[in-house]
Amino acid sequence: MVVELINTGSELMLGRVLNSHQQWLCRQLADRGYVVSRQVAVADSAPEIAQAVREALSRADLVIATGGLGPTSDDLTRDAIAGLLGKKLYEDAAVIAHIRNLFAQRRRPMLESMRVQALVPEGALVLGNSHGTAPGLAVEIRPNPFRNADRPAWLIMLPGPTRELRPLFAESVVPLLQRVFPLENTFVCRTLRTIGMGESMVEEKIAKPLGSILSRGVQIGYCAAPGRVDIRLSAAGTNADQLIAEGEGIIRTLLGNAVFSVGDEELEAVVIRLLTERKQTLAVAESCTGGYVAHRLTNVSGASAVLRAGWVTYSNEAKQQSLGVQTATLAQYGAVSEPVAREMAEGARRIGQTDFAIATTGIAGPTGGTPEKPVGTVFIALASSQGTQAWKFFNAWDRTTFKEVTTQQALNQLRLLLG
Amino acid sequence: MVVELINTGSELMLGRVLNSHQQWLCRQLADRGYVVSRQVAVADSAPEIAQAVREALSRADLVIATGGLGPTSDDLTRDAIAGLLGKKLYEDAAVIAHIRNLFAQRRRPMLESMRVQALVPEGALVLGNSHGTAPGLAVEIRPNPFRNADRPAWLIMLPGPTRELRPLFAESVVPLLQRVFPLENTFVCRTLRTIGMGESMVEEKIAKPLGSILSRGVQIGYCAAPGRVDIRLSAAGTNADQLIAEGEGIIRTLLGNAVFSVGDEELEAVVIRLLTERKQTLAVAESCTGGYVAHRLTNVSGASAVLRAGWVTYSNEAKQQSLGVQTATLAQYGAVSEPVAREMAEGARRIGQTDFAIATTGIAGPTGGTPEKPVGTVFIALASSQGTQAWKFFNAWDRTTFKEVTTQQALNQLRLLLG
Repeated sequence: MVVELINTGSELMLGRVLNSHQQWLCRQLADRGYVVSRQVAVADSAPEIAQAVREALSRADLVIATGGLGPTSDDLTRDAIAGLLGKKLYEDAAVIAHIRNLFAQRRRPMLESMRVQALVPEGALVLGNSHGTAPGLAVEIRPNPFRNADRPAWLIMLPGPTRELRPLFAESVVPLLQRVFPLENTFVCRTLRTIGMGESMVEEKIAKPLGSILSRGVQIGYCAAPGRVDIRLSAAGTNADQLIAEGEGIIRTLLGNAVFSVGDEELEAVVIRLLTERKQTLAVAESCTGGYVAHRLTNVSGASAVLRAGWVTYSNEAKQQSLGVQTATLAQYGAVSEPVAREMAEGARRIGQTDFAIATTGIAGPTGGTPEKPVGTVFIALASSQGTQAWKFFNAWDRTTFKEVTTQQALNQLRLLLG
Repeated sequence: MVVELINTGSELMLGRVLNSHQQWLCRQLADRGYVVSRQVAVADSAPEIAQAVREALSRADLVIATGGLGPTSDDLTRDAIAGLLGKKLYEDAAVIAHIRNLFAQRRRPMLESMRVQALVPEGALVLGNSHGTAPGLAVEIRPNPFRNADRPAWLIMLPGPTRELRPLFAESVVPLLQRVFPLENTFVCRTLRTIGMGESMVEEKIAKPLGSILSRGVQIGYCAAPGRVDIRLSAAGTNADQLIAEGEGIIRTLLGNAVFSVGDEELEAVVIRLLTERKQTLAVAESCTGGYVAHRLTNVSGASAVLRAGWVTYSNEAKQQSLGVQTATLAQYGAVSEPVAREMAEGARRIGQTDFAIATTGIAGPTGGTPEKPVGTVFIALASSQGTQAWKFFNAWDRTTFKEVTTQQALNQLRLLLG
């Protein structure tokens, strides 16, 4: 079965926004066994959209297109696809009622421009949008004039806003796919996330020992990101589960605690999980990471039971006043130093009355470096009932990557201690 | 001139990572007048890569492909493209020397698997990679057997890691493009970011008054994101600059201070800029946003002169101890209340000794809601020398969107006050 994805939007082609639909839909589809083989993005242009859909229908059994169903003048997908398929559009009474109802709930008048969202190509299924105005649309193309008349295809159109697309996919598209494309073959994909080694080193350690499962049809992929390397194993067929489990076992044996999670669990989620299991608490004292450690931790539902307090102490005064860092320590060693990192962690643990405290201090750049402490210099400290440990790192990246890598290192030290 | 982009990587098709190259390259290219008309992503599969490149070369003057040049077994782009173009690969001595040198600097032995990155298709230009091992490669396809022999094309291959691709693009690809594709026509694209109105309402207000510039060839686009709507104007030609300036003037007159930035400046950058100009300082006290306000502010270079202190006070104890919120206030109104938001902001301003302080308290969910205070309830307070103001919002989204929208509202209140 061939699956293709089309994302429409001039903002994509002009590079104004990230294409998060691409990742999310590919992930949702792959997890259910429908692996996307090609993704295409085009501008809000009716001819470009029609051409992309025509080409996808010449190859695929299932085509999913996102965007261009809204009420503004650059929403062209509905018309482009109706034109391509030679189908008329009619105004669907149930959709109009739904839109009216939404506006009534919000106690606002319904703008006349909203009506266009109720236009449906003849014969299409309407996929109700519980979080917005424009419904999804699904059309069975039978016969399929673009490929092979005997192989029908499905074309599914989804609205662009993320908070509408995601529930609509889960509520309406997944049941439709399971009905019209029941899968005979299991597909298993598992990602092991590692930290502490480069991509080549990871491969050097595991590729040969994995030879036997790779020769039995398992695919392997490596992906390096700031502060981590992901190893991805995937396989199809009845023994896919067993092969992947075997591969995971080999990797875990060889890489040990460099593997920090499986199945895309984020490092912050691992830390919150371990602390929750142990009923222990955490405080964070951040200088150079500027709140990013706390932000990552509080992205995890349940963080409130674990993260008792956090400080963003960019200035020396804040380090002294909020965390009790000594004036003499700042004067003697400077704010970016191991002794200050230690005092920050110890102060956070003492004042927050927590089991653990993490502290970061460093030079994110682009300015502020010196010959002795160049941009990228970082000290991380971790205070616990067993005392305080500290590490020096050199993360000479751009500001964004610096924060990403430094938070990753800080969370990892705590993970290793909790191990 | 037709430009197409190809991103390779099975991790993209399996939805394991966001395709940030797509946005970044489309943006860099559009800003220089080379608007990408189609972007395609395919898996790490030599036939899929070759097919995507062949199709792109049948339409485009310039094709940029990312990924698949590294040392691991799933790096297949180099071979796939050499095969497609019928070119032999040779080992480039300068690239080998560069790789050896990088390993020597890091005082590590060079792994034998690294050598593959020095293979170069005959006739290709080598684009030096100052931040990594695999160089970029540029091939002029003349004659172009896939399109029209008289219209040659350029195919440029870039390494996948972000921190290698970006400097390589700036240092080597931009000068190459300016040499081989000098542009006759100016292209201007400008984005105005707004907050406080939905996408349809924005269009309702501006579309008709913009009619005269739209009829003179200006394109308009709308893009809704959590807590903002972007309006994008673009035009090509000698008077593009003037048309866009005229459009910006009309929009600013109609939407007033709902427009918070132009040219993709983030709201946090606007706030840091305004405070820096006024030499004023800020403290943040975050409960439900969990450090995200501080993180966003400290993403801006120069934030350290403005953001004096931040607190992440998830627990009642932290609110009392760090910010001086009264026990009685917490008992009477609860942690998620306007009086607590006010005391948090006032405490942060007093203890941080700053000109302004922002506080957030709310229920991010998915759990923790009550009938009186459902998930999504938020109070934001802003303390200044003129007293303290507070606002109630209802942001009933998923946790990530909740944090995004709430930080946006908090930063916006400060922007409006500074405005």
